[in-house]
Amino acid sequence: MVQDIRSGDRSALARAITLVESKAERHRLLAEKVLDQCARTGRESVRVGFSGVPGAGKSTLIEKLGMRLIGDGHRVAVLAVDPSSTRSGGSILGDKTRMEDLSRETNAFIRPSPSQGSLGGVATRTREAISLCEAAGYDIVLIETVGVGQSEAEVAHLADFVFLLAVTGAGDELQGIKRGVIEYADAVLVTKADGDNESAARIAVQTYEAALQLFRDRDSGWSPRILAVSALEDRGLNTLWSIVSDYRAATKTSGYWDENRSNQSVYWLHASLITEIQESISASAEIREGLARLEDRVRNGLISPRSAAAAILKSFLKLDHS
Amino acid sequence: MVQDIRSGDRSALARAITLVESKAERHRLLAEKVLDQCARTGRESVRVGFSGVPGAGKSTLIEKLGMRLIGDGHRVAVLAVDPSSTRSGGSILGDKTRMEDLSRETNAFIRPSPSQGSLGGVATRTREAISLCEAAGYDIVLIETVGVGQSEAEVAHLADFVFLLAVTGAGDELQGIKRGVIEYADAVLVTKADGDNESAARIAVQTYEAALQLFRDRDSGWSPRILAVSALEDRGLNTLWSIVSDYRAATKTSGYWDENRSNQSVYWLHASLITEIQESISASAEIREGLARLEDRVRNGLISPRSAAAAILKSFLKLDHS
Repeated sequence: MVQDIRSGDRSALARAITLVESKAERHRLLAEKVLDQCARTGRESVRVGFSGVPGAGKSTLIEKLGMRLIGDGHRVAVLAVDPSSTRSGGSILGDKTRMEDLSRETNAFIRPSPSQGSLGGVATRTREAISLCEAAGYDIVLIETVGVGQSEAEVAHLADFVFLLAVTGAGDELQGIKRGVIEYADAVLVTKADGDNESAARIAVQTYEAALQLFRDRDSGWSPRILAVSALEDRGLNTLWSIVSDYRAATKTSGYWDENRSNQSVYWLHASLITEIQESISASAEIREGLARLEDRVRNGLISPRSAAAAILKSFLKLDHS
Repeated sequence: MVQDIRSGDRSALARAITLVESKAERHRLLAEKVLDQCARTGRESVRVGFSGVPGAGKSTLIEKLGMRLIGDGHRVAVLAVDPSSTRSGGSILGDKTRMEDLSRETNAFIRPSPSQGSLGGVATRTREAISLCEAAGYDIVLIETVGVGQSEAEVAHLADFVFLLAVTGAGDELQGIKRGVIEYADAVLVTKADGDNESAARIAVQTYEAALQLFRDRDSGWSPRILAVSALEDRGLNTLWSIVSDYRAATKTSGYWDENRSNQSVYWLHASLITEIQESISASAEIREGLARLEDRVRNGLISPRSAAAAILKSFLKLDHS
């Protein structure tokens, strides 16, 4: 399987991602082996995150950018982090027709969000999918997130560079600022800067420029950029990618690029540990039932959260783990 | 011990909190028993969080408010959530002289932040301290947080009502907004609204009023309030507490107050489970050493984060847990 992945076989890659997403006990050991061998290929990509509220134009922009990068000779993978997919069955990238052109390209690989339990679980599995895509020779990975809450903090742990997409409109200039998301953004893209929207976009760029000055310096030493783009009129896409290239050049020189990656890996080790434990716990029907009973008792003040947690841990440790 | 706590013995309460904070294996079972019995006393308090950057005037305001509430016949406990205390040995409430008047009152109980490993650990232990204070008959618990990042999200899980404290000054009006913290605030207090600061405070109140209108409605149905206060001139403290009372009356009627508490309890069950597991894992020197070795291997791309996590979990499960 790893050989097929390395040779660039897309269906082998898709199967491998399904394998690592599987909760079945019999798949886990194999998944670990595949991930280890893929980690050791030494192949890497430029990992770029796209964050922003629904309707900000993430999919459209990613498709246009992806087509352009493929035209330049790159191999592009598009992944998603969407914790809501647990409930909805995948609200972003689920509908492949949304990236119709890109999905027809042999040098593109598109994969909707894993639908795991927790946000941590979703992001952990996405981290693993990135690693598999890199082993398969994709040299650029674009990561789309649904623009709500914590998923945007998670994408900063997944990506080398994060774009925040902002749409214009009454009061909306503040949307990224007020949600605190801007803290994670290496660049803000004011999207749909075309037609009647152009002057609104110009104002939005100014608002973000003012807002960004309020923020403390980044660990990376990078000053966030602001750019108006139009996927419709194909405007700003070259500049957009040159910003990523500038960032890469600057942080490769300073050492931040590699240091950040190394810290991200350790972050995912700890995140994986929590995911592993949560999945092991919820894999047992006995434990799940016990947990539901204890939740009721905690709600009614019959037992402290701590004792309930200790009881769950105790029953978990008593299971046969051999 | 529980009898002493219930009778209002402050040194018994302090010892009980030390007990639940202890990582020693021999203290854990006793801690669980004490917490369970305290949970069953049915005693409750009004839990109010105070969040805001260092220098916003949290300690001064809490002390003045606490003195006033004691004057009205209440018993007041003051606790802190400060994840930085792990490194610094406690930067807030650590120095008792900062609340000199309040600490002399027999109806007040002041306790600095637990210094546990992770933020989750700190907040979990604070949740337990609240429960012990309530069993000891404190009918008001004031929770101070250090104004950085996630600790403010955590206080929303601990408290019934959260105040965000904002100081005035060039650009600072936006501090709570830009950090996304305002999302958790049930009221914003513009502090130090006295002397030369009065007009700046008025402007800050207006800025926050405008900003709050941008936010979606709360689950509680509550519209956040904004108030200028001065601990120095003793201004706004009556209004401040009447806001809490209004909130309590409104959400008791709607059912949100109890629903929120019930959901918070379940949240802490799951948070406690993660804390319990992390503490059990790091209690073993063998596992700690293994983790450090695996971090290095993950950093160097020799093993995937997932395999490393699985290896740690496996060695943990192999330990003698009887």
